[in-house]
Amino acid sequence: MNTSSRNELFQQAKQWVLEAGANIRTQMIQPMEIDTKSNANDLVTSVDKKTEQFFVERIHQHYPDHQLLGEEGYGDDVKELTGVTWIIDPIDGTMNFVHQKRNFAISVGIYQDAVGEIGLIYDVMNDVLYHALRDEGAYRNGEKLPQLKPDVTLETTVLGMNHYMLCPNRLLDEQVMHQLVKKIRGVRTYGSAAIEFAYVAEGILDGYAVMRLSPWDFAAGMIIVHEVGGLTTNLTGNAVDMLQSGSILVSHPNIHQQLIEEYFIKAKK
Amino acid sequence: MNTSSRNELFQQAKQWVLEAGANIRTQMIQPMEIDTKSNANDLVTSVDKKTEQFFVERIHQHYPDHQLLGEEGYGDDVKELTGVTWIIDPIDGTMNFVHQKRNFAISVGIYQDAVGEIGLIYDVMNDVLYHALRDEGAYRNGEKLPQLKPDVTLETTVLGMNHYMLCPNRLLDEQVMHQLVKKIRGVRTYGSAAIEFAYVAEGILDGYAVMRLSPWDFAAGMIIVHEVGGLTTNLTGNAVDMLQSGSILVSHPNIHQQLIEEYFIKAKK
Repeated sequence: MNTSSRNELFQQAKQWVLEAGANIRTQMIQPMEIDTKSNANDLVTSVDKKTEQFFVERIHQHYPDHQLLGEEGYGDDVKELTGVTWIIDPIDGTMNFVHQKRNFAISVGIYQDAVGEIGLIYDVMNDVLYHALRDEGAYRNGEKLPQLKPDVTLETTVLGMNHYMLCPNRLLDEQVMHQLVKKIRGVRTYGSAAIEFAYVAEGILDGYAVMRLSPWDFAAGMIIVHEVGGLTTNLTGNAVDMLQSGSILVSHPNIHQQLIEEYFIKAKK
Repeated sequence: MNTSSRNELFQQAKQWVLEAGANIRTQMIQPMEIDTKSNANDLVTSVDKKTEQFFVERIHQHYPDHQLLGEEGYGDDVKELTGVTWIIDPIDGTMNFVHQKRNFAISVGIYQDAVGEIGLIYDVMNDVLYHALRDEGAYRNGEKLPQLKPDVTLETTVLGMNHYMLCPNRLLDEQVMHQLVKKIRGVRTYGSAAIEFAYVAEGILDGYAVMRLSPWDFAAGMIIVHEVGGLTTNLTGNAVDMLQSGSILVSHPNIHQQLIEEYFIKAKK
């Protein structure tokens, strides 16, 4: 993807993200039809579906050779990341959306031949747009984010993680996770993976760890965090599979390997 | 306290809170002197101290017969809540303040003869002021908050709690807390008790539970939450002591007793 066509694609994606966000804000004043997908924790709303359809229609019309992988399943049956693929979560943080009417985001990652080129995370109600183009830095509302500050250690870390990691679960020994909580400075839980990635990029969090995410949850975030020097792998330190759900650790580079070796690998069942 | 003198006091308190907040925003661009009180989790900054002194000076000058109980200790040695007492946390959420430069609040509760009359919580960086006067409702940036919605159950609850409750600790059996996490819809952690009280008042959270808070952390929040129908007790269901640190449960009335009986009393060591 050359620089000028990438810039054009970014401007188009940005326009659609802001337009979709504005539509969501308008719809927030109408009653929502809430449906449950697999359980009460996995709420799907009509707004979620409509927002994905908004992207599907525009992308298929303007870029008929692009693929679209989306949470709600209105996109394509993507088998591999050849050519240009949009990976979209129309509303990341659905529980926040339904329950709080804020703290959710539109997440759009654009990959070419499996390389992340453009990432957009739009915190809709706060009207904050994070974006990055590969090798051109990360931005918050158009203002360039600095590289992650150098003086981060595990002892000073504020980590995003959800509470299930600290309860008995199939994947991780919660007792090792308890040790991690006692080691670091603090833990936060915001309920939107995309926003937590954006906070890592801003240095608001030093890392974010989660047992299971899907590509649309992290596709944009990985590109943005990478631009300020952050690392993303799964919890055992391996490369993230962009077509599979799996565990995720995104963090400051000072603590990434230590978190994996001293905590997540030890906790792995 | 009659209505007109209470209104005057509220207007004065509001003006000082907004002024203190503006001062903090100005100081955010200067480097902070960070000191540690008892441990790394309990950061005290010069801004914290300056902000408390700001209130101490003004209150002593304008209201020489009022008492002031503040986190940083520049106030009075308050033994009982006779007369008018200001209970102030100059910066609630100090770790957020230092680490995130946002998501912290100024908390001011004004009590007369132990009755909460005026509560103010100012989310400084987001410029959002929550306030309440007893029996006159709660407000967010001047807009009246509705009463808490009627259809809350434990299964649909989103609860604010920190992660230490889920790790082995001296006060609560963490295994009972794990059951609670599995019962409810979701858990969030924002790192500022005052803001979490405000979120309960808004219905963003259905409750907030914590093992240990001090009066300045909850003095304003209790007044605000009470005005929309929420309840505040300690974790065993007893009245909160306004002069002592202790556990706190603030929540929607539908779930308050159930949380205490089915979880917190069972978990108590």
